[in-house]
Amino acid sequence: MLEIPDIQRPSKELIEGLQGISSASAAGELCRLGIRQAQITGPVCYSPDAHIVGPALNLQFMPKREDLHQSGEYAGPERQLHRQVLYKTQPGDVVVVDARGDMNSGIFGEMMLTYFMGKGGAGVVIDGCIRDYPEAKQLDLGLWLRGTTPDFHVQTNIFPHAVNVPIACGGVLVMPGDIIIADEDGAVVCPIALAPELLKKATEHHEWEEFTRMRLAQGGELSKYYPLSDEARVEYEAWRKTQ
Amino acid sequence: MLEIPDIQRPSKELIEGLQGISSASAAGELCRLGIRQAQITGPVCYSPDAHIVGPALNLQFMPKREDLHQSGEYAGPERQLHRQVLYKTQPGDVVVVDARGDMNSGIFGEMMLTYFMGKGGAGVVIDGCIRDYPEAKQLDLGLWLRGTTPDFHVQTNIFPHAVNVPIACGGVLVMPGDIIIADEDGAVVCPIALAPELLKKATEHHEWEEFTRMRLAQGGELSKYYPLSDEARVEYEAWRKTQ
Amino acid sequence: MLEIPDIQRPSKELIEGLQGISSASAAGELCRLGIRQAQITGPVCYSPDAHIVGPALNLQFMPKREDLHQSGEYAGPERQLHRQVLYKTQPGDVVVVDARGDMNSGIFGEMMLTYFMGKGGAGVVIDGCIRDYPEAKQLDLGLWLRGTTPDFHVQTNIFPHAVNVPIACGGVLVMPGDIIIADEDGAVVCPIALAPELLKKATEHHEWEEFTRMRLAQGGELSKYYPLSDEARVEYEAWRKTQ
Amino acid sequence: MLEIPDIQRPSKELIEGLQGISSASAAGELCRLGIRQAQITGPVCYSPDAHIVGPALNLQFMPKREDLHQSGEYAGPERQLHRQVLYKTQPGDVVVVDARGDMNSGIFGEMMLTYFMGKGGAGVVIDGCIRDYPEAKQLDLGLWLRGTTPDFHVQTNIFPHAVNVPIACGGVLVMPGDIIIADEDGAVVCPIALAPELLKKATEHHEWEEFTRMRLAQGGELSKYYPLSDEARVEYEAWRKTQ
Amino acid sequence: MLEIPDIQRPSKELIEGLQGISSASAAGELCRLGIRQAQITGPVCYSPDAHIVGPALNLQFMPKREDLHQSGEYAGPERQLHRQVLYKTQPGDVVVVDARGDMNSGIFGEMMLTYFMGKGGAGVVIDGCIRDYPEAKQLDLGLWLRGTTPDFHVQTNIFPHAVNVPIACGGVLVMPGDIIIADEDGAVVCPIALAPELLKKATEHHEWEEFTRMRLAQGGELSKYYPLSDEARVEYEAWRKTQ
Amino acid sequence: MLEIPDIQRPSKELIEGLQGISSASAAGELCRLGIRQAQITGPVCYSPDAHIVGPALNLQFMPKREDLHQSGEYAGPERQLHRQVLYKTQPGDVVVVDARGDMNSGIFGEMMLTYFMGKGGAGVVIDGCIRDYPEAKQLDLGLWLRGTTPDFHVQTNIFPHAVNVPIACGGVLVMPGDIIIADEDGAVVCPIALAPELLKKATEHHEWEEFTRMRLAQGGELSKYYPLSDEARVEYEAWRKTQ
Repeated sequence: MLEIPDIQRPSKELIEGLQGISSASAAGELCRLGIRQAQITGPVCYSPDAHIVGPALNLQFMPKREDLHQSGEYAGPERQLHRQVLYKTQPGDVVVVDARGDMNSGIFGEMMLTYFMGKGGAGVVIDGCIRDYPEAKQLDLGLWLRGTTPDFHVQTNIFPHAVNVPIACGGVLVMPGDIIIADEDGAVVCPIALAPELLKKATEHHEWEEFTRMRLAQGGELSKYYPLSDEARVEYEAWRKTQ
Repeated sequence: MLEIPDIQRPSKELIEGLQGISSASAAGELCRLGIRQAQITGPVCYSPDAHIVGPALNLQFMPKREDLHQSGEYAGPERQLHRQVLYKTQPGDVVVVDARGDMNSGIFGEMMLTYFMGKGGAGVVIDGCIRDYPEAKQLDLGLWLRGTTPDFHVQTNIFPHAVNVPIACGGVLVMPGDIIIADEDGAVVCPIALAPELLKKATEHHEWEEFTRMRLAQGGELSKYYPLSDEARVEYEAWRKTQ
Repeated sequence: MLEIPDIQRPSKELIEGLQGISSASAAGELCRLGIRQAQITGPVCYSPDAHIVGPALNLQFMPKREDLHQSGEYAGPERQLHRQVLYKTQPGDVVVVDARGDMNSGIFGEMMLTYFMGKGGAGVVIDGCIRDYPEAKQLDLGLWLRGTTPDFHVQTNIFPHAVNVPIACGGVLVMPGDIIIADEDGAVVCPIALAPELLKKATEHHEWEEFTRMRLAQGGELSKYYPLSDEARVEYEAWRKTQ
Repeated sequence: MLEIPDIQRPSKELIEGLQGISSASAAGELCRLGIRQAQITGPVCYSPDAHIVGPALNLQFMPKREDLHQSGEYAGPERQLHRQVLYKTQPGDVVVVDARGDMNSGIFGEMMLTYFMGKGGAGVVIDGCIRDYPEAKQLDLGLWLRGTTPDFHVQTNIFPHAVNVPIACGGVLVMPGDIIIADEDGAVVCPIALAPELLKKATEHHEWEEFTRMRLAQGGELSKYYPLSDEARVEYEAWRKTQ
Repeated sequence: MLEIPDIQRPSKELIEGLQGISSASAAGELCRLGIRQAQITGPVCYSPDAHIVGPALNLQFMPKREDLHQSGEYAGPERQLHRQVLYKTQPGDVVVVDARGDMNSGIFGEMMLTYFMGKGGAGVVIDGCIRDYPEAKQLDLGLWLRGTTPDFHVQTNIFPHAVNVPIACGGVLVMPGDIIIADEDGAVVCPIALAPELLKKATEHHEWEEFTRMRLAQGGELSKYYPLSDEARVEYEAWRKTQ
Repeated sequence: MLEIPDIQRPSKELIEGLQGISSASAAGELCRLGIRQAQITGPVCYSPDAHIVGPALNLQFMPKREDLHQSGEYAGPERQLHRQVLYKTQPGDVVVVDARGDMNSGIFGEMMLTYFMGKGGAGVVIDGCIRDYPEAKQLDLGLWLRGTTPDFHVQTNIFPHAVNVPIACGGVLVMPGDIIIADEDGAVVCPIALAPELLKKATEHHEWEEFTRMRLAQGGELSKYYPLSDEARVEYEAWRKTQ
């Protein structure tokens, strides 16, 4: 039987705390914490309005080689690493796949994704494609993909190679257990060691932002309301009392 | 007058039989039948939830050359090959266009597509773009495209060159009369000679799949339910009797 | 204080007249007026059913250079050129951005776009990305983008360099004050000098098009109804009287 | 036996006359004759200092399809179309191949190219690769290629489909029998119908160019010597007498 | 101290036997042995006339991440993995690097390559760049590269991640100890398990090829001499006796 | 007459001092001075063994627009901006061109380059192509290009737009008068303000490098000789006395 490493999961508090933060806020704060570029570039949101936060289960693909890889889709299911990564699913997990940007490999299909959802998985971020999208889009999962394909996962160029090892996905390094924060802007990797710091920043609430947003929508001046000028602050304080 | 070859259409039974099969099932079976890669890669679905099956009417574009091609859009309409291919439309046909991946040529506009729909056309698969998408998206047609453009079909780089000849579309060879199976996963080419074999496979119904899907959604184990283990089969048979 | 040039805006009549014209009609007519390719290629419509017409406020980005550019997002807001271009907004304006096709720079976020909407801006055309798309998509703005990103505008590779200078956007030259006509087909640049001529063409109404569309949808012949043959014209005139 | 069409070859005088013209002069004149872009873009010169002029024998590849194409390299040699095109070689001919930009298909190897040279072939222009370059570079042939590869011609993605039909090569349309003019700047297609006109232009000798070149190399002013100003013409006439 | 795995090296006889085989022959035979595509696609030969055969020492790069990677070039030299892979060099070894196609990272410079040559290294195959090419091209090493760059190896986007693990290089999987066969056509990976079979094939000498080559260069018919027809065989036998 | 700005040239001492530094050393030092990426990525060396150092004369191209740009090559020579930039040439200058990566525009031809050489120009760095390469390669100029083309500079897509303004070239910002350091590794931009600091670094000679290079070529240990260990330093001092 295959020995598949599991990941170390962060505390529930950490995940819950981060759930209030958008991928945009995360990317900005992480940049200020020294991570120049935390966006997984390439995969885009295929599940409108989805917003997920969870630890990364990693799956790595490699170019297929006929002397090493069996090509049948259903040969020896338990040896299939794209299954093995799903077996590790705990509620809230996010599966991140380096599928090498391949557009002719459907990494997961309806059954795999249904199972993942059944186990409480939050979503998948794939530098590549899924198949069975007509059914998959109806599942309660966040999907960040390069696209969709009718091809199955080992049909053409690639093969699953390892689970829960460090992977490159969309130009960034993802360590197993790093935290993924993803919404319609895209998917961001928060290094696990920086997550508490990010959480701290995220909870510094800009209370005046709601006021600013309202004023800007009414035609207010950017230089007055964003950031809040001294003049606008007086106005804000007055408004705040009326709320 | 131009002599435009028509295609040989498959039997109604064949098309109807294949209508129950998704592009993903088709790609998988065709791979097992020896076609490594049947997906037309590049064009994606611009008509949500569309699923079409029909024979291919082919249109081939070539790079424009000023000594051979007239550039006006409306010069000598009857010599326009993008019209000629539409004239061949019979109900259920699919127009497949090698538009060379060009993003500045709207192969068809609203009027052409309306005519095509009026003739019973099922959809178009274009390695390139259409124009008039605001109107076209409201027609009852399946659309697989690389994108949309305001440019007309001979405005910049390409020109229609031949109708119902073998073409390359999205990296695969399409013969006139091959069967196109397309849905939100993408568009697949089924070589006409393999269609009966594909149909046979397609009708082998996995009766237990509905049961499996349900169990997986409830958190059931993948290794137990997909494929169905002996243990799960007993459970399935019991469940089946209750239905 | 920065001296930012403003643009010369066209007459209200011109803009209103052009509002009845689609990007497809504009591209076709401009081609006949000598502009081979007027489409801004790359940015696509992220605001379904949007159709805008307005003069271009231009913003140009350049590759970031550390000896010249401060990297902080909020350092010296008034020196930020992506703010300065928005300060020039008058109702109906369109902001056009050469963001160098960069996928890791969110040119504008929710606050900036809210301000722009508050000032009456019609939309943005960006050869690059915005951030805060979950919020931005709810604003009453037309959005033509290459994509979305969680990254902020100066996070990685580029920096705002100039406002209301000539820019390249998606392969075409855009002069400050040129007219942008954009819908779901894409965004087209109408050189300001050609706008009156385009308006003239645009108002030549093809009264028979509605009739033709109806007949084609009913299965009528393309060669008879589009363009209208003599035979069809008689039919059309009869139909017209009944309306 | 396969029926392979031959091409109509131009007169010896035409070819000889064009041999004095560079690809750059040809591209410039053809542009003035209405051909916006005659360069085969992509293939570059792999045979330093080569300059060839000759009629095009065309070979077209298509994506490989397993139900139609046998994959063995040496199966049924006489059915191999990449041989058939070489069988048509007459002294001075140029083989032009649409190899779809594929980097894993060596269209010709040493033996094929040696045969082609033995028949008097002038060179090949391939939107793709050859193999056996270590040997091929020693043959007396002009080579315009995208690259080299160890793979043989039908090893991976493509298959020869037709000989002496119109093809697209590097973004331009090449008709069988068109004239190829190629040197280290690249390869240009001269439509056969425009060749006499091109020849006429090519023989208009700028006698002063040698003088200009000398003066510019000595530090002379561009505005004075290129094109020749009235003042420089006097100087030139004097210089000419001394030659 | 870092524990860096070494590779298992093949017998001297195997390497010497394979030295008579070109990358083109190797790719062809490997294809017949079931490896569809053995070419490392992307890196090209930067050392004219080089031909090397040797076992692969693998070096894998990953996207740089600031919380994990120190950016200084000379910080803690012994921790630098691009050094560690070179420390393993034995005569005839080939260093293969997955540098992710990066054009702004010079994986090795003059000093590293000089050391590698001093240890008897045969060459490098890098899906990326080296720096100090003006000096490196004068070393007695085979170089297969995507290009050259003035940047050092960790200057911009990537960082060395692992030594002698399986890597993807130019679209193929390379296992540590696989045999690299590279010449001006490109670089080919021979899976170590298939090397004996390849050697066997490689030693089947086509004695008549020299004769065929001569005849083809003289204008002989391809169908007669390649492959050798019965008629040509008689001629060949006669010629052979005269040699 | 056109008013074309000139550049401010650095002192002769600065340029001469920098001439001893390679592009690789420059890129490394500039990185340590805060410039993450100074390489002009894309253009490669077309003049073997060339090494140049000089101030940048900038030329910027924009997409061609028919209402603004005359398409004739020789229309109004004095209005041609690609001439105007050359008129500014002083000995040692380097012309840097943002040609938008275009492969169908030969920015300069033989005559222009001959004039440039006559004026003492050191070389050109073009994110695009030249034409007349067969002649140009024989001039005493450094050439960094994306490629060569037979097309002339305004034949297809682009048009010269401005001289000696800030430009983007190969992904970096080049200010007029910045110093270009280019050799076979590539071309690097040294911001003029950092040039004195770079010069200072460049003159810190590593006297032991020659010794190290020798030892490494003899099979010496990298960890001992590079950088020089205490043990090796003793050996070096001894060796040095013998020189």
